[in-house]
Amino acid sequence: MLNKKIGKQTIKFLEAPKIISTNAIVGPKEGEGPLREHFDVILEDDLFGVDTWEKAESRMIEESVKAAAKKIKLDIREIDYFFAGDLLNQLMSSTFAARHLQIPYIGLFGACSTLTESLSLAAIMIDGGYGDYAVAATSSHFSTAERQFRFPLELGNQRPLTSQWTVTGAGAAILSSKGKGPSISYATIGRVIDFGISDANNMGAAMAPAAVDTILTHFSDTGLSPKDYDLIITGDLGIIGMDIAKDLLLKEGIDVSNNFSDCGVEIFDHKKQDTHAGGSGCGCSAVVFCGYLYKQLKEDKIKNLLLVSTGALLSSTSIHQGESIPCIAHAVTIKSESNN
Amino acid sequence: MLNKKIGKQTIKFLEAPKIISTNAIVGPKEGEGPLREHFDVILEDDLFGVDTWEKAESRMIEESVKAAAKKIKLDIREIDYFFAGDLLNQLMSSTFAARHLQIPYIGLFGACSTLTESLSLAAIMIDGGYGDYAVAATSSHFSTAERQFRFPLELGNQRPLTSQWTVTGAGAAILSSKGKGPSISYATIGRVIDFGISDANNMGAAMAPAAVDTILTHFSDTGLSPKDYDLIITGDLGIIGMDIAKDLLLKEGIDVSNNFSDCGVEIFDHKKQDTHAGGSGCGCSAVVFCGYLYKQLKEDKIKNLLLVSTGALLSSTSIHQGESIPCIAHAVTIKSESNN
Repeated sequence: MLNKKIGKQTIKFLEAPKIISTNAIVGPKEGEGPLREHFDVILEDDLFGVDTWEKAESRMIEESVKAAAKKIKLDIREIDYFFAGDLLNQLMSSTFAARHLQIPYIGLFGACSTLTESLSLAAIMIDGGYGDYAVAATSSHFSTAERQFRFPLELGNQRPLTSQWTVTGAGAAILSSKGKGPSISYATIGRVIDFGISDANNMGAAMAPAAVDTILTHFSDTGLSPKDYDLIITGDLGIIGMDIAKDLLLKEGIDVSNNFSDCGVEIFDHKKQDTHAGGSGCGCSAVVFCGYLYKQLKEDKIKNLLLVSTGALLSSTSIHQGESIPCIAHAVTIKSESNN
Repeated sequence: MLNKKIGKQTIKFLEAPKIISTNAIVGPKEGEGPLREHFDVILEDDLFGVDTWEKAESRMIEESVKAAAKKIKLDIREIDYFFAGDLLNQLMSSTFAARHLQIPYIGLFGACSTLTESLSLAAIMIDGGYGDYAVAATSSHFSTAERQFRFPLELGNQRPLTSQWTVTGAGAAILSSKGKGPSISYATIGRVIDFGISDANNMGAAMAPAAVDTILTHFSDTGLSPKDYDLIITGDLGIIGMDIAKDLLLKEGIDVSNNFSDCGVEIFDHKKQDTHAGGSGCGCSAVVFCGYLYKQLKEDKIKNLLLVSTGALLSSTSIHQGESIPCIAHAVTIKSESNN
């Protein structure tokens, strides 16, 4: 059998699994941001008609999967695998969505790297012939993340300027070898990188070295370089982390000054929306990809995309036990249809 | 390409990935149980030389991976993927182990179903030609689980008779297409099943219907029946859950009275060790498989094994919000070498 792994950490997909449909649901604040026109649903109320924020987040995942399937008239019972994860303890959002969806379920935890973690595994299932349809989905919610990782919202704590704003949103992407759509050609699976940062309010700085490690490995494994991509976009480094990542790449001789951005930078108008260092959360790269970037690929405005979702794998327990923040990033190469 | 999925939820591995090495580390209490002679390491102190139970649990995963590799003189840098998860919020044990191991890391959450979730994905990576070596690992720790999910240990709360005892232990299994060992021939990926039980002290009863759903689907997808297996063993239903599962199977016309057991029943001497309804935790099926069952397969005492790890996907938040307990089970068929 052909070995589909190249270099140290990269998979080359010979069958180029296609992303045949996506859906993005966001909260009210995200719906006021610069990408508003690209989202499928903008909630008027971040409780989404249920009685807790956690259940609302779960409902967002569930509805985004259903809507992505509905767009292409696919019965969700035809989907072979549901790869999903979120930030909540024991993946409450994904699990309760899986209970309703009844698709065979693989629960993942990669913090905000979950989108590319789930896309990579879904692509493997399709590329390897293990099924016809796989859906990758993830979510986050400002109010569930704040109260789980930081403080009760009722406290009204002041947020430091390095802090990021957890995106309220969910995204789902359906992969198949049948049908049309942008295709996944590579996945670079990340290692856990920890540069010793222990400030849970400065996660961009903590995650930047992990993003850089994965990007450098991706280029070294594939022989590609920044000029092979129209856009290299990280998950949610935010303004501070993105600048650190660019600097670290430049030190390694990789110049991305013209084609590098970050989903956490793109999603909000940070001055007007008071979101400090940018957006974050699993939902951040999920809605920016499933909403905005997927359309750019479909319309051939982007032909080659390197999507690098980044996760800070801290827990309240690990921080209280004096541990620094381990981080990870997984990268996925996505090509437009004309470029398949 | 050949479609490797059969029936509704089952993967048939054409390349039959081999489990070439395993390792099981357990705590002192597990080391006093009936399977004591089969574990590689029995800790004298469940802090394992570090200063918190969470770090001890993480160290158990890390050491079990290293020891499994060392047994076959494999450099851990040759391992392509580390599939791991645990019960702790944000997978503290697995993540911090991944930070030290530096193997490309896929974090999973399936509660106590994590062993068969990670074995299934590791088998896919090897079967599909995505790498040479993959390691599947998981852990649990009585003291970390109690204080996260129930009460501070210092309270000395009385435990109801339906409650199970979280196993302190970690197991790791290395898969490859090279080398010798028992092989994985099928994986049946579970759906989330919820029969409405909301008592976090009766998880065996909550999980039994998920185990039964996956076992029935496995037989229906593969055309196999109980007589094709020397042993069908669930993850950690415990005494109460195992009896419920047997009854539910019998109602469906499946008689497993002669070859059915449960890792949570096998690991402790429940009368002498005061463990009430049995063992539980991700580490339960991990150490029973990586310690005891793997040896039985190697020695050809078991030729055909159906391992069905079962997970109760509750969180403290979901229980406090009045939700019942969603459960899942993934099944893996493992054949002895003589039977490959």
